[in-house]
Amino acid sequence: MTQPLVGVIMGSTSDWETMKEACDILEELGVPFEKKVVSAHRTPDLMFSYAEQAVERGLEVIIAGAGGAAHLPGMVASKTALPVIGVPVKSSTLNGLDSLLSIVQMPGGVPVATVAIGKAGAINAGLLAAQMLGNKYPAIRQAFMERRERVKQTVLEASDL
Amino acid sequence: MTQPLVGVIMGSTSDWETMKEACDILEELGVPFEKKVVSAHRTPDLMFSYAEQAVERGLEVIIAGAGGAAHLPGMVASKTALPVIGVPVKSSTLNGLDSLLSIVQMPGGVPVATVAIGKAGAINAGLLAAQMLGNKYPAIRQAFMERRERVKQTVLEASDL
Amino acid sequence: MTQPLVGVIMGSTSDWETMKEACDILEELGVPFEKKVVSAHRTPDLMFSYAEQAVERGLEVIIAGAGGAAHLPGMVASKTALPVIGVPVKSSTLNGLDSLLSIVQMPGGVPVATVAIGKAGAINAGLLAAQMLGNKYPAIRQAFMERRERVKQTVLEASDL
Amino acid sequence: MTQPLVGVIMGSTSDWETMKEACDILEELGVPFEKKVVSAHRTPDLMFSYAEQAVERGLEVIIAGAGGAAHLPGMVASKTALPVIGVPVKSSTLNGLDSLLSIVQMPGGVPVATVAIGKAGAINAGLLAAQMLGNKYPAIRQAFMERRERVKQTVLEASDL
Amino acid sequence: MTQPLVGVIMGSTSDWETMKEACDILEELGVPFEKKVVSAHRTPDLMFSYAEQAVERGLEVIIAGAGGAAHLPGMVASKTALPVIGVPVKSSTLNGLDSLLSIVQMPGGVPVATVAIGKAGAINAGLLAAQMLGNKYPAIRQAFMERRERVKQTVLEASDL
Amino acid sequence: MTQPLVGVIMGSTSDWETMKEACDILEELGVPFEKKVVSAHRTPDLMFSYAEQAVERGLEVIIAGAGGAAHLPGMVASKTALPVIGVPVKSSTLNGLDSLLSIVQMPGGVPVATVAIGKAGAINAGLLAAQMLGNKYPAIRQAFMERRERVKQTVLEASDL
Amino acid sequence: MTQPLVGVIMGSTSDWETMKEACDILEELGVPFEKKVVSAHRTPDLMFSYAEQAVERGLEVIIAGAGGAAHLPGMVASKTALPVIGVPVKSSTLNGLDSLLSIVQMPGGVPVATVAIGKAGAINAGLLAAQMLGNKYPAIRQAFMERRERVKQTVLEASDL
Amino acid sequence: MTQPLVGVIMGSTSDWETMKEACDILEELGVPFEKKVVSAHRTPDLMFSYAEQAVERGLEVIIAGAGGAAHLPGMVASKTALPVIGVPVKSSTLNGLDSLLSIVQMPGGVPVATVAIGKAGAINAGLLAAQMLGNKYPAIRQAFMERRERVKQTVLEASDL
Repeated sequence: MTQPLVGVIMGSTSDWETMKEACDILEELGVPFEKKVVSAHRTPDLMFSYAEQAVERGLEVIIAGAGGAAHLPGMVASKTALPVIGVPVKSSTLNGLDSLLSIVQMPGGVPVATVAIGKAGAINAGLLAAQMLGNKYPAIRQAFMERRERVKQTVLEASDL
Repeated sequence: MTQPLVGVIMGSTSDWETMKEACDILEELGVPFEKKVVSAHRTPDLMFSYAEQAVERGLEVIIAGAGGAAHLPGMVASKTALPVIGVPVKSSTLNGLDSLLSIVQMPGGVPVATVAIGKAGAINAGLLAAQMLGNKYPAIRQAFMERRERVKQTVLEASDL
Repeated sequence: MTQPLVGVIMGSTSDWETMKEACDILEELGVPFEKKVVSAHRTPDLMFSYAEQAVERGLEVIIAGAGGAAHLPGMVASKTALPVIGVPVKSSTLNGLDSLLSIVQMPGGVPVATVAIGKAGAINAGLLAAQMLGNKYPAIRQAFMERRERVKQTVLEASDL
Repeated sequence: MTQPLVGVIMGSTSDWETMKEACDILEELGVPFEKKVVSAHRTPDLMFSYAEQAVERGLEVIIAGAGGAAHLPGMVASKTALPVIGVPVKSSTLNGLDSLLSIVQMPGGVPVATVAIGKAGAINAGLLAAQMLGNKYPAIRQAFMERRERVKQTVLEASDL
Repeated sequence: MTQPLVGVIMGSTSDWETMKEACDILEELGVPFEKKVVSAHRTPDLMFSYAEQAVERGLEVIIAGAGGAAHLPGMVASKTALPVIGVPVKSSTLNGLDSLLSIVQMPGGVPVATVAIGKAGAINAGLLAAQMLGNKYPAIRQAFMERRERVKQTVLEASDL
Repeated sequence: MTQPLVGVIMGSTSDWETMKEACDILEELGVPFEKKVVSAHRTPDLMFSYAEQAVERGLEVIIAGAGGAAHLPGMVASKTALPVIGVPVKSSTLNGLDSLLSIVQMPGGVPVATVAIGKAGAINAGLLAAQMLGNKYPAIRQAFMERRERVKQTVLEASDL
Repeated sequence: MTQPLVGVIMGSTSDWETMKEACDILEELGVPFEKKVVSAHRTPDLMFSYAEQAVERGLEVIIAGAGGAAHLPGMVASKTALPVIGVPVKSSTLNGLDSLLSIVQMPGGVPVATVAIGKAGAINAGLLAAQMLGNKYPAIRQAFMERRERVKQTVLEASDL
Repeated sequence: MTQPLVGVIMGSTSDWETMKEACDILEELGVPFEKKVVSAHRTPDLMFSYAEQAVERGLEVIIAGAGGAAHLPGMVASKTALPVIGVPVKSSTLNGLDSLLSIVQMPGGVPVATVAIGKAGAINAGLLAAQMLGNKYPAIRQAFMERRERVKQTVLEASDL
């Protein structure tokens, strides 16, 4: 099972600090993935070919993180039949509200599955990819459910302050 | 193929006008679905049992629409391993910004795949569910791609003003 | 008077720094309370049983603090007849505006008594609980009024810059 | 039981359309109340004397609705030991965001129990007052719980679209 | 002078009502232009080829209008050396704030010359294109200045209320 | 000329760091003033008596600074015929947007002359008070104009980077 | 007393509907005023000469209303020693938030006395001008106080719903 | 080619840290420019004369940066036929949202080509000026395209994380 199922892309190397969280989750759950910097604005052709070839290359989910006028998730979504998860990276000026709105407010026809701004969103992007894959790959569902149970136990054990 | 794969739920009958768009898409793409009013705040136990039984009942995706302090998508997501798509219904006072933030800003651990505010978001929720299912059900992917092609042709034909 | 009258709960141990302010006030006013981490999303069943048993366990007010898509106060409120005070914990990305809207914009039928974002809100949650209890417990009202008088005197003494 | 327990005040007669919802709930639950226009800015002395005499007049909760730079709830709260519930009335220019922030962002020391913007908030103000009183007046708690049950049944009956 | 110098594109036929204002200005100033619906999300390949061929086709400025997660101006800008003017079309849910942020918050490297939300912005997009062209085409500058003078006279004549 | 013409008040000693700027300007322009902490919420009676006596005590302008749900300027304005200048102090959670809206969005009938958030606003409060007084006291107008000229010269001298 | 003391200016004839409220108040209080359309952007030279001559023409206060990127109040303020009151006119796209921020967020050195968005703000601009003038003209102060008393009586008479 | 084609102006020396980015880009692309502090509010006459003489002095584009109630770009635009690029400098209180709205929301008739808040915007202002000039000066277009190619190569080389 070394064929990547999830492609994790981001608009800039500076997004890696955030997007690493998604990769860590995928690794923890045993979901094979690949990762790459693909900039909507600086490498638009790479972005299009990446999106166009995603299905035939065997990917089943794409996670795309970007900040500011974040066009990467939506443009990739316009060029693939795969579900695309968008992670709004926190921007330096408007705290990520611009990233969030640029990703989530897609017109009818081209959805982006948007998660929270920043690292919590990147973690959830990894988990959401696993949930999507879980219907087809029972082992991923199993890993997802075991992680959730572990987290619950950790919270319960620390619930008395 | 009459077993519903998608459960479309909403917090109130007044959300139906918006959420109907999601159902129309699922119908158009031949994705079997069910629909129900399940209120996080007024019928919390129903919400929990709905979420808990979703996997065993054969659902593979849940679409949940709600407005204002929209807790339905996130709470359902906390009780199921299925991917949950959240539709922020436009609220009467803050234009749906409250709905959007209440749905998308989930803490790390429990993702909600959030789409745009209002009807465009509901349309996209239907399409996103189809994309998630498309990896496992080739007919759904096929239907998704044919719809996208039809839409593209319509735009192209009308592109000269 | 060792039966707790107020239950102070929060979604995560990281909320303790904020919610400690509420507990300090309750202690200062001699209001018996208990405190616990109860996560809406990671321990939803615990949250429901906590809310369901609150009345029979003798609690009279619940204070619930949470950040981001803060569902804890509203969901607890949906499962108890007690008044629930919601404290929006300041979030790392949107300064707590998301927490505030997720808590305050509850639909008609399930109120949450919302206070300010962050520590000022936690202080006020403690005071508000005391005010609610003051109608039934004269000693708590008395303690509340004495504290208010002390604060007033402190301000008056320092009013000349 | 004709002594009013709740005082419903508002900054202007134009707020009545919203605040009527609170009164309707109180009436439905059998909570005795009084209602009055008391303007923070146009009748400040009336506001202060109203707040100062509230305890001795036998009131146990105050509900105050106001819009824009809504100072009524916070100022009344500064002059009484009773819990004050603030209803942000939807403003004509900023959709009630100004009303909400002016009411909820109180400094540590003087809480206002803030509810949602507009009519949903007014409904919840009535319910929240009943919840506060429920600890002392079992009949009010009983009425609150019966209403909640009725609402739940209504939702359940209409849950199949 | 029938070679179009300005290409006016928009994401949807529903944007025409707004973007017509830009065309009216260009016509008034005698700037040759063409207009077309080019959707970033529904016709991404057309968008790319339009942008790629713009220089060789003789265009000197592109005006692109879009709403919501408005990716058209920024993506076109990433594929052409021409200056691109972005018009945020007023969206139905967030009043165009999402359109504005999605267009203006471009990362360093790919500018979009953003104008105001809605019709005022479309008018200004036409004028801005004329200003850009005015350095090279004296007749366009002349026409721009005459229009400005006419507008000033109109204001002055009506300045006494 | 030792009778104070301007009363500078603020809701808390923590506002002094901001409000000191207003006092510095008044001193620089030779406008006699007094300064005092007067809290709307913690010392409401002091606030009312301060406002009520302001005219007879010879004050001609009041500058009031406050943060969060900033009620001080508006409430003072409701109790005096003097012009009241409101300074929104930057709040820790919402950057002063709450302070600004709580001060500026006054209902028709009771104006507050609102200036910018934070120190720039405090500086301008001092200048605005001087401008108001300048119509009656030529020396203050003169001082105001000389300061403006000095500032202009400073900018001009440093205009070449 | 026919020499105008207040100059009421606005950026466009479409602002008259709002700014008329300021004129009505001035008329009611017997404050002589003049009114004029002066556009910052379309008639900048007129704006500058109006501001420059305001003192010598005998004006003592300027009220300036504008919408959107509302530069009129701030630019007039930069060219006169008179106090300038800014009225943010409600804009069609962002509800006047843009107008408000463009007027109130002036840099240290050039204050604009900003009032609420829209008609309430225009009413208050008239009243604020009267308050400023009241220190020098006892008749205006008297008229202001009588109006305030009348308003209070009206509220008191209608306070029982 | 030592005649400056671009005038880079800013409202304050504190804006230089941001606006330096624009100058660096112009230098890199070989576009001759000049730079100057010109304050809309503190040196309004200098601003007007600068704008009025820009065409005859041979400038072809103006870049203007300012923060808060940023009036510089819009006022310069009202006094010149040249295209004006506005850079919203990040403000200390509202993160530059005030700067952005004050610059971009210009009324129909006087456009400002607005770019992103802060340094990314300043970089893009330089590039946008080069794009505008590129239609007339092939060497500038050439330099622009070479820079874009270089940036693309840098991203591609670093795209594997």
